[in-house]
Amino acid sequence: MTAAAAIGLGIRFRVLAADPDESAAQVCADTVIGDYRSSDDLLAFAAACDVITFDHEHVPQPQLAALERAGVAVRPSPAALRLTQDKLAMRARLGELGVPVPRAELVSSLADVQEIANRTGWPVVLKAVSGGYDGRGVWVCRSNAEAADVLSHDVPVFAEEFVPFDRELAILVARSPSGHGAAYPVVETIQRDGICHEVLAPAPGLADQLAESAIELGLKLAGDLDVVGVLAVELFETRGGLLVNELAMRPHNSGHWTIEGARTSQFEQHLRAVLNWPLGAPTATAPCAVMANVLGGHDSDVHGKLNHVMAADPALKVQLYGKPVRPGRKVGHVTALGEDIAAVRARARRAARYIAAGTEEP
Amino acid sequence: MTAAAAIGLGIRFRVLAADPDESAAQVCADTVIGDYRSSDDLLAFAAACDVITFDHEHVPQPQLAALERAGVAVRPSPAALRLTQDKLAMRARLGELGVPVPRAELVSSLADVQEIANRTGWPVVLKAVSGGYDGRGVWVCRSNAEAADVLSHDVPVFAEEFVPFDRELAILVARSPSGHGAAYPVVETIQRDGICHEVLAPAPGLADQLAESAIELGLKLAGDLDVVGVLAVELFETRGGLLVNELAMRPHNSGHWTIEGARTSQFEQHLRAVLNWPLGAPTATAPCAVMANVLGGHDSDVHGKLNHVMAADPALKVQLYGKPVRPGRKVGHVTALGEDIAAVRARARRAARYIAAGTEEP
Repeated sequence: MTAAAAIGLGIRFRVLAADPDESAAQVCADTVIGDYRSSDDLLAFAAACDVITFDHEHVPQPQLAALERAGVAVRPSPAALRLTQDKLAMRARLGELGVPVPRAELVSSLADVQEIANRTGWPVVLKAVSGGYDGRGVWVCRSNAEAADVLSHDVPVFAEEFVPFDRELAILVARSPSGHGAAYPVVETIQRDGICHEVLAPAPGLADQLAESAIELGLKLAGDLDVVGVLAVELFETRGGLLVNELAMRPHNSGHWTIEGARTSQFEQHLRAVLNWPLGAPTATAPCAVMANVLGGHDSDVHGKLNHVMAADPALKVQLYGKPVRPGRKVGHVTALGEDIAAVRARARRAARYIAAGTEEP
Repeated sequence: MTAAAAIGLGIRFRVLAADPDESAAQVCADTVIGDYRSSDDLLAFAAACDVITFDHEHVPQPQLAALERAGVAVRPSPAALRLTQDKLAMRARLGELGVPVPRAELVSSLADVQEIANRTGWPVVLKAVSGGYDGRGVWVCRSNAEAADVLSHDVPVFAEEFVPFDRELAILVARSPSGHGAAYPVVETIQRDGICHEVLAPAPGLADQLAESAIELGLKLAGDLDVVGVLAVELFETRGGLLVNELAMRPHNSGHWTIEGARTSQFEQHLRAVLNWPLGAPTATAPCAVMANVLGGHDSDVHGKLNHVMAADPALKVQLYGKPVRPGRKVGHVTALGEDIAAVRARARRAARYIAAGTEEP
């Protein structure tokens, strides 16, 4: 999706991919096959680039440091990216900044978890310190046995208080090296089992004051953490206000609706930001937009059912990622736009479910 | 621009280009270098394709016939494309269909032109029978001397009556092999010296009845000429009604505004049509949109001034084509959207002129 945005801007865009079958490699005219964990591959790739940016947070710090030492413009910076690679570090940093986050503490044994449960009651939320992506790496444990299962995987985890939130929100902002910032409307994200299913833009019925708080928080965090590019902040809306759940410093699933739903898509915005170009208008193009993820079902052919969805709803926008279908995997998304949130949401949900599984539900 | 549309649709898209520096080759992950005038190159390219389509009308008929004989799905068909390759054939065919066109006749000598001028007075419009593109190949001759200059180039031409039109309009429609059709709002095109400078969507102040006639005409022509893909019909608005000036059976400059200004861009629509997928909604996304071409000036660096334009108008959309600048060449375009046509037009004109030449005009 960033490659498509680069075409219009006349940017020479290249991708480092592990495999020619990766989504970005399929559509980028200048793909280099290499390993993002190899400093040699990264340095060779970067030699022809003015700026390096990311669509995931897995490039390790030593390799990022090697790029910086070589004088490569790495945006966002390794120091900022570290907060998306180490969730405990992120929580500590946000704590220093006075930003409300769920209480968290490192656990190294089942006894530690049990001790927390004795204090707070079950459930206890366990999260991987690193490598979390899209909810994988987050486990809501309701018993000793569930916690023991998580710990058995030998992934460093920390425990987080279970927050009885009303709903989940996200705020997407962009920031350029010169400090120019832009914020998109606050959205509601509908998650199930830690996977984002839908994004409603703007968040229905959100109090103006909370929306303003979220925007202020997003812009403040981008500045305080020295983020360059887009920053997605996942939030819990609770009776006591907003809590920060997760950060991402790249185009994010919660912003896919901006491709058609905002004057500047998050992909164009990310490119403009990392190139230190003026940011584009983040204003909405329609009263409401709903993005629904196409989650792989048991049918491996998502293309076969596109025709029906397109015929049923000619105004629907479909985006497929060129990924092999696996159950639960995000293989594409749809976006519907319109005036009535309930109607728009019904269109998006129906289409996403039909493309994935061929089934209709009332 | 078609490559960008293909990304979202999950289509495997390949391009036959003469040179790796061509606009499409720069951004398409699967570019084959070859000659569109070579049947061997075309057949080798087509072997891996389900459907072949075009972004220009220069592939000669014998080579198109070779593709058809080999069982390749060529859309639009050679028979339809012929009408965009031979303007006299097009006028004859439209005449048979009862579609109003300017009167035309073949001329082979200056005496022929003089004879027409004696009947109708100057100017006499001379047009190349083939190879016209974007106004090049059209000469409004106001004297014997001007006509002699055109004839001296040894290009087969015909003479056309000079139509005293009020303005130029265009209607863009799409048609799929199954006969499904869709029409975009009628636009006004602002041409100078045979080059399109601006497109106003929808055409300001167009009478409902004329708009309906234009849409009906576009859809009828697409059907009667068996067009598959998008069809752009350039029209003269005269006191006596609409006259057809030119046809194009590919995404067309008069439809670039649809990238942001319509729910389905002409590029996505063309792909959907030639693949026989259901067509997308051609509805406008804003009350008005203005596209202004960035015409090369004497400054070869169009990128250097982008920043200023983006800073001055964050909601403006810019599209650069990756072409070397030559004076008068279309090297990109900008689109502004909004509610007030005069304000939107001023934004688009100002930005296009500034990117091209760095100058501001009142």
